[in-house]
Amino acid sequence: MTILESRYGKSRVRVARLIRQKDRHDFYEMTVGIRLEGDFDSSYIEGDNSSVLPTDTMKNTVYALAKEDAVTQPESFGLLLARYFLTGNPQVTRARVEVAQHPWHRHGRFSFVSGGSHRRVAVVSASREAAIIEAGVTGYVLLKTSGSAFEGFLKDRFTTLKETGDRILSTSLDALWRYRGDDVSWAASWHGVMKLITDTFAEQESASVQHTLYAAGEAVLAQCEHIENIRLTMPNRHYLLVNTEPFGVDNANEIFCPTDEPHGLIEAVISR
Amino acid sequence: MTILESRYGKSRVRVARLIRQKDRHDFYEMTVGIRLEGDFDSSYIEGDNSSVLPTDTMKNTVYALAKEDAVTQPESFGLLLARYFLTGNPQVTRARVEVAQHPWHRHGRFSFVSGGSHRRVAVVSASREAAIIEAGVTGYVLLKTSGSAFEGFLKDRFTTLKETGDRILSTSLDALWRYRGDDVSWAASWHGVMKLITDTFAEQESASVQHTLYAAGEAVLAQCEHIENIRLTMPNRHYLLVNTEPFGVDNANEIFCPTDEPHGLIEAVISR
Amino acid sequence: MTILESRYGKSRVRVARLIRQKDRHDFYEMTVGIRLEGDFDSSYIEGDNSSVLPTDTMKNTVYALAKEDAVTQPESFGLLLARYFLTGNPQVTRARVEVAQHPWHRHGRFSFVSGGSHRRVAVVSASREAAIIEAGVTGYVLLKTSGSAFEGFLKDRFTTLKETGDRILSTSLDALWRYRGDDVSWAASWHGVMKLITDTFAEQESASVQHTLYAAGEAVLAQCEHIENIRLTMPNRHYLLVNTEPFGVDNANEIFCPTDEPHGLIEAVISR
Amino acid sequence: MTILESRYGKSRVRVARLIRQKDRHDFYEMTVGIRLEGDFDSSYIEGDNSSVLPTDTMKNTVYALAKEDAVTQPESFGLLLARYFLTGNPQVTRARVEVAQHPWHRHGRFSFVSGGSHRRVAVVSASREAAIIEAGVTGYVLLKTSGSAFEGFLKDRFTTLKETGDRILSTSLDALWRYRGDDVSWAASWHGVMKLITDTFAEQESASVQHTLYAAGEAVLAQCEHIENIRLTMPNRHYLLVNTEPFGVDNANEIFCPTDEPHGLIEAVISR
Repeated sequence: MTILESRYGKSRVRVARLIRQKDRHDFYEMTVGIRLEGDFDSSYIEGDNSSVLPTDTMKNTVYALAKEDAVTQPESFGLLLARYFLTGNPQVTRARVEVAQHPWHRHGRFSFVSGGSHRRVAVVSASREAAIIEAGVTGYVLLKTSGSAFEGFLKDRFTTLKETGDRILSTSLDALWRYRGDDVSWAASWHGVMKLITDTFAEQESASVQHTLYAAGEAVLAQCEHIENIRLTMPNRHYLLVNTEPFGVDNANEIFCPTDEPHGLIEAVISR
Repeated sequence: MTILESRYGKSRVRVARLIRQKDRHDFYEMTVGIRLEGDFDSSYIEGDNSSVLPTDTMKNTVYALAKEDAVTQPESFGLLLARYFLTGNPQVTRARVEVAQHPWHRHGRFSFVSGGSHRRVAVVSASREAAIIEAGVTGYVLLKTSGSAFEGFLKDRFTTLKETGDRILSTSLDALWRYRGDDVSWAASWHGVMKLITDTFAEQESASVQHTLYAAGEAVLAQCEHIENIRLTMPNRHYLLVNTEPFGVDNANEIFCPTDEPHGLIEAVISR
Repeated sequence: MTILESRYGKSRVRVARLIRQKDRHDFYEMTVGIRLEGDFDSSYIEGDNSSVLPTDTMKNTVYALAKEDAVTQPESFGLLLARYFLTGNPQVTRARVEVAQHPWHRHGRFSFVSGGSHRRVAVVSASREAAIIEAGVTGYVLLKTSGSAFEGFLKDRFTTLKETGDRILSTSLDALWRYRGDDVSWAASWHGVMKLITDTFAEQESASVQHTLYAAGEAVLAQCEHIENIRLTMPNRHYLLVNTEPFGVDNANEIFCPTDEPHGLIEAVISR
Repeated sequence: MTILESRYGKSRVRVARLIRQKDRHDFYEMTVGIRLEGDFDSSYIEGDNSSVLPTDTMKNTVYALAKEDAVTQPESFGLLLARYFLTGNPQVTRARVEVAQHPWHRHGRFSFVSGGSHRRVAVVSASREAAIIEAGVTGYVLLKTSGSAFEGFLKDRFTTLKETGDRILSTSLDALWRYRGDDVSWAASWHGVMKLITDTFAEQESASVQHTLYAAGEAVLAQCEHIENIRLTMPNRHYLLVNTEPFGVDNANEIFCPTDEPHGLIEAVISR
């Protein structure tokens, strides 16, 4: 028997970093996940832990390195951590670090209001030779009430869906785009991409979720030279038109039932 | 044997209402819960359903009444529904309707971005004689990095907590305030109360969660003549100072570990 | 302004207790919530913490008292904790302790498999004069495919539900029964009540969820002299008959769609 | 720009199948996810839906095919669905179907009790040339109180974890094993693998989660000729020894605090 692949690490390491400026506080909250790959077979097969850095130590490392300036951006914090584990551990061949930033909106100099349930994320996957830096978002929820159709689709014997030129379109977007290098203004780039996606979603005449997904990806690649490709995952958060006819009520595309399951799911990677 | 109390109804009825203005769309999304009390003992004891309005019918009623103007405010939609069930059902003595509105932020004339995971809520509890209208919020997450202490508390033999004059204070607020009557501008009042709570949280020199809770309630009652009382529930979302000393790192109130469990929970009703 | 009511405490204190027998280990895992009421107004109004036992101390108390034999039963552990807080804190007038036990099934002398997502619970609410001890369950999921009807119900203009003499009935039961005193074999009683509920659910010819709820409560009170009353909360976990006719498939009560929302909810307290 | 990869489908299609035997009912509940890959670029780029089978049709197909005998096993139901989509849709090159079965334990001839929160799962990934059939489990929670150590591990400057020869080991196992072909007694094989994993977990002297993971995989491959490889994912559900010394209580490995975050995570694929 053989170990085809393996990785281990620490998940859900939560850390908050407070930076005390003279007249205000800055506050950053991150959740970090770490995975290491490398020469660990003897730990699996023989129970030999001599090359195993404890996941508890990874947690401590997140706390320790949270003092560095890099902590303020998920991309640079991920890169710092990945390089740290590679530098100190010759048995590690690849380090993957995921960082999710919790959105806090400033309300006064020392106070904040939570900005929602989406997360700005970065994924850094690094070997000693190269580092891939991806940034993105999870759980970014969008909805439009006009400019969305679904017509001309394939029918088979089980198809009952009606064609429609006017439906609500909503998604909870996950996106992850890959940077060409690390000479990027992380925050400015992130906000720029988010605006492109949001505007494209709002303005496109959508023929389907697929159509909207591609338009969003195309807009990002067209505007952002420093991005190589983008993965978009778009569940279809269905708002079903309620059939009110059986109880004698007219429904001219006015009343909908939001539903979580089942739901469509569309995923693609758009590249240059 | 006897039935000391009973109620039944429908939970998690989700409905979205689209209002097509000439140059823009308005969009309202609510989740409704309904509970009826009254003369239903024979359904329990004898299986006699002749007085039981099906919960499926309650669901249809939500959809049907969503066409009315009242749907745009949780308070008025709750009142409309409660009165509807009382009017049509002599066996019902009390109707309780909870409405939670999902926050959507406009982005363009026909497009919206989710405004987070908190919910504006209303609870209407009505009999044929009177209706109690409460409004509030669930899951409103606040955090401050200054102006929060916890000192001078009681110690017993199991107390290990250190006194501190400088800690992070965060909560996920649930609030429910009771109106004196229904002649209220629901939306304006809601936003006014939310601003009072948020400002008080930010500005108070807090001696404890209890102290902050009371200050928020007091501010609301002092400013809002039309509110009789307010219930505030404030979990203490602990941000624990990380003990970095064992691994040789200095932590001058800079690095914290957010934690969900266990957590403190403070609840009180402030009244005139 | 005045404080109409208040309480505070610690939630989600998780503790596991390992008891090392000679030839096997016993293992108990509990989640504890504590709420204290009493003379705490000055902490709210003036920020005076001198009467406030920190919730962190409550957490330590759970760990400390977990060494006692009482920890092995939720009812006795709740009682021990409630009495402890009343004894040591003259400012406290009422202590409420909720204990939820995680089900572990033994697999060998030192190993266990999780027994599911339901929890055995106890709620102890004690003053210096008296203690109310309740026991029960949360999230106990039952389903039957025969012996369930819903017919003869009230119809109004929005009713579209079809009467049926043959439907799937499923619920995720929450129950809480109140003991007459504390001279009870807690574990034996709990298992006895659970068997009565499960058997009644399986065997009754059900006319409605209400009918089943009452039958379960009646069976418990009829058999258990030491129980004063029982609260039962039964969501209707709907299994909707799929309308397969539009795509040419016959469905003779064979194919169902389980759905979480919306759902019916029935609640009652049955007493002697 | 180009589409590097894409897939679409329906998630969380829930279906229950009732089979009415003469003297008892059999009941199967599944949650199905479907993903199709193939020639769909024009739907993304041009909004041309002519090759797009609606995800709503996939949902109907699940309901329709739930009448077949294959529905009683996740593996055969997944295979049936995957082949159906490939047969009817020349534009599809690969169909991936995930089926998760909800555990119901029989209690009488027509009644069932939920068997917990773990799920028996199957993943079928099929092209016109070949089908890969994997089976497994998600969320299978195990715990042992003896026979678990973690010693001799690597230390660096941030390491504070103490070596221990006696700790609680618990995991919420996800496993997925790949069959060599489809001539397998699906249910018997599944129960056999689950017993091997559970017994190995209970009986092994564990030096680490890695060590236990490998032992479980090795036991499965050694006993089951018809299995090619097995992927095991084992979060470390930490039960932290509570430091009770600061409040004067002795803790001889008796009192633990279960914690969800952060947590270790170990993943590997063991193969022949």
